[in-house]
Amino acid sequence: MIGEIIAIGDELTSGRILNTTSGLAARHLFLLGHQIRAMHTIGDDLKLIGTTLKAAVERSDFILVTGGLGATSDDLTNEAVIKALGLNGAVHPGVKANIESRLGKGERAATSLAKLANLPEGVEVLDPECRMAGYLLWYHNKPLYFLPGVPPQMELLLRNEVVPRLQAFDAGHARPVYQRIYRTCGLYEIDINKRLRPLEHQNIEIGYYPVGAEVHVSLTFHHLEKGEEDPEFLRVDTFIRDALGPYLYGFNDDTLAAVTGDLLMKHGLMLGVAESCTGGLVAASLTEIPGSSRWFKGGAVVYANELKERLLGVKAGILVQEGAVSDSVAQAMAGGTVSHLGCDIAVAATGIAGPDGGTADKPVGTVYLGLAFCGHVSSRVHHFHGSRRQIQEKTAHTAIDMVRRALLDFNPAQ
Amino acid sequence: MIGEIIAIGDELTSGRILNTTSGLAARHLFLLGHQIRAMHTIGDDLKLIGTTLKAAVERSDFILVTGGLGATSDDLTNEAVIKALGLNGAVHPGVKANIESRLGKGERAATSLAKLANLPEGVEVLDPECRMAGYLLWYHNKPLYFLPGVPPQMELLLRNEVVPRLQAFDAGHARPVYQRIYRTCGLYEIDINKRLRPLEHQNIEIGYYPVGAEVHVSLTFHHLEKGEEDPEFLRVDTFIRDALGPYLYGFNDDTLAAVTGDLLMKHGLMLGVAESCTGGLVAASLTEIPGSSRWFKGGAVVYANELKERLLGVKAGILVQEGAVSDSVAQAMAGGTVSHLGCDIAVAATGIAGPDGGTADKPVGTVYLGLAFCGHVSSRVHHFHGSRRQIQEKTAHTAIDMVRRALLDFNPAQ
Repeated sequence: MIGEIIAIGDELTSGRILNTTSGLAARHLFLLGHQIRAMHTIGDDLKLIGTTLKAAVERSDFILVTGGLGATSDDLTNEAVIKALGLNGAVHPGVKANIESRLGKGERAATSLAKLANLPEGVEVLDPECRMAGYLLWYHNKPLYFLPGVPPQMELLLRNEVVPRLQAFDAGHARPVYQRIYRTCGLYEIDINKRLRPLEHQNIEIGYYPVGAEVHVSLTFHHLEKGEEDPEFLRVDTFIRDALGPYLYGFNDDTLAAVTGDLLMKHGLMLGVAESCTGGLVAASLTEIPGSSRWFKGGAVVYANELKERLLGVKAGILVQEGAVSDSVAQAMAGGTVSHLGCDIAVAATGIAGPDGGTADKPVGTVYLGLAFCGHVSSRVHHFHGSRRQIQEKTAHTAIDMVRRALLDFNPAQ
Repeated sequence: MIGEIIAIGDELTSGRILNTTSGLAARHLFLLGHQIRAMHTIGDDLKLIGTTLKAAVERSDFILVTGGLGATSDDLTNEAVIKALGLNGAVHPGVKANIESRLGKGERAATSLAKLANLPEGVEVLDPECRMAGYLLWYHNKPLYFLPGVPPQMELLLRNEVVPRLQAFDAGHARPVYQRIYRTCGLYEIDINKRLRPLEHQNIEIGYYPVGAEVHVSLTFHHLEKGEEDPEFLRVDTFIRDALGPYLYGFNDDTLAAVTGDLLMKHGLMLGVAESCTGGLVAASLTEIPGSSRWFKGGAVVYANELKERLLGVKAGILVQEGAVSDSVAQAMAGGTVSHLGCDIAVAATGIAGPDGGTADKPVGTVYLGLAFCGHVSSRVHHFHGSRRQIQEKTAHTAIDMVRRALLDFNPAQ
């Protein structure tokens, strides 16, 4: 089916708050096989809400509206829907009971009731307990879903209430889209393009999306008799996996940190990190993963050179002779992390994130990564581009990937 | 003037990539005094691009279109514009010369030329060097700006090329909007609401935006004779500042980390951090700020208890008796950071970020923050809600705010 998404709120059209809900909803609906014709973001304007909604209902099969369902004076969605579609308003008994149980029957309850409980007649409230705003309205035999603008509430109701109703309504007409995302680290988009060139002109839908130090490749099939067991899907999938080789770290919602954590856990190894230019970002990326304490021991953020000596035992002589941004210091930091923190494998980052501090020899974006594992230390220099934060993020990803690559090649039997 | 923004790309309507460019553009235009009627996000569809553009041109004063200007087969904007508006296409000499200087005259150049250089006749290319895609097209005396979908390129051309042209066209009609954002940490939205209640019913435009552990308050004036020197603006501004007191940490684009860094620098103090549950996020937030090496010394990510002892000298006895998530350990971590890292002030975080590890006594979201400064250590317990990442982010913000509050009260003369 073809749908449209309408997001309502002055905070969105003034750019004060980024609209993240429409994209999130589009992703869910796309993967179910529906096509989103357009997403509209409009302000809290009674007339505009009405005209946008009416135009969308005329040309599309279903509509998702987010925002403007709250209790403050700028929340106008209910009123706009009633007016624009020529409906009657009615106090919804379930919503009324919920408000009264929370607020009693005083002045605040009256204000909330007028806004929250006065819905278009005949709607089905989506939250079974009537706590969250949001309802389904049938209009000219088309479903119109109204959801809160707050992203977590929107997503919860979308997943649990909207999707099952929409799929039941569609009853087997929409075919799921088979999309697999191949997540890579360490290759440029143009290199991946070259590796996948043989797939061109085969009528295969492939997309490339650079995301920081990573590039994600999407493979999309719209009609597959046997789903992901389809021979054509398997043929292309195998080709892509082989072409990307060890640069391919995962699929779909995998993250580099989680995949690396799984490898560490598989081998029973504890990781430590030493960070200068990334200033804690490597550790923060790793500890975002639930359960990371099973494979992450900790780290030293050695921003000042003095701390490289104090916490990691990097020799002052090396720092003076080679400079803090060098192969020797990256290796000494990694080695010192293994010995001083007592971990099995360590990665270290030292570099120039900018905007100041670059030299002719070592311009902004020069980063040395060190690795200590199995009694050996090694290092590699990288040159990253972008803002300070982009350089820090690319460095952190590449550092984690260095650990992943070391574990891929690791054979405990040797 | 009233404008509309159209973002083009299948990666946006499929939810594969979040549309960030429209919101960014809206923010710039709103602050210049223009109103964005609507932002539309549509797929790479020749016909839909045309109808959306034509409808927008009819009802609005100017249009901003982003995306679909590249060299690949799914880039259709130029073709759609030419068809929908009934224009002629013409090879743009500047763009052609640029492509040929980069790619020579081979097959790749020919493909690029056909897509990139074949523009609607008479457009003004925005990049003076014709390297970036993007142009201004006048249609029925209305300006239509076409910009690349890549956010940094879009923003660069918007700032440097679109805004000056739009302001010259508008020639003094649009009045700038005076909007000040008050950034707070440590108060709930409902508490701020209560403090600012006296401003209600005074026809003053105030918005509230919770962002993690922070709440941002916006004050908006549309007509001010004397700009921000206007007595009414000053009156309301003074009221808000007084009402928010020390919870107000900054304005507009200020960040908590940068404001805290400025305070540290003013007093010539070096900060150190000790992180357990935040796993490096406090350090990463601080080192995102350029020049942070002048006030940030480093930190210890002591995820494993063993490291709390090794790196910070926390006594094993305290860890066993009180548990790692406790006032005593938060204080010992902060004190150990000052002594072991040799810094002037230190903040420490230990808590349960979840999703596992909570107990009846200390549920997920229980966090102890410790502070060591001027020979004293103190600590405070917090209870945060949300996902693991949200709890980590709220903890990191609150930890940095603890440093800021200590410095606000700091009188070096005493």
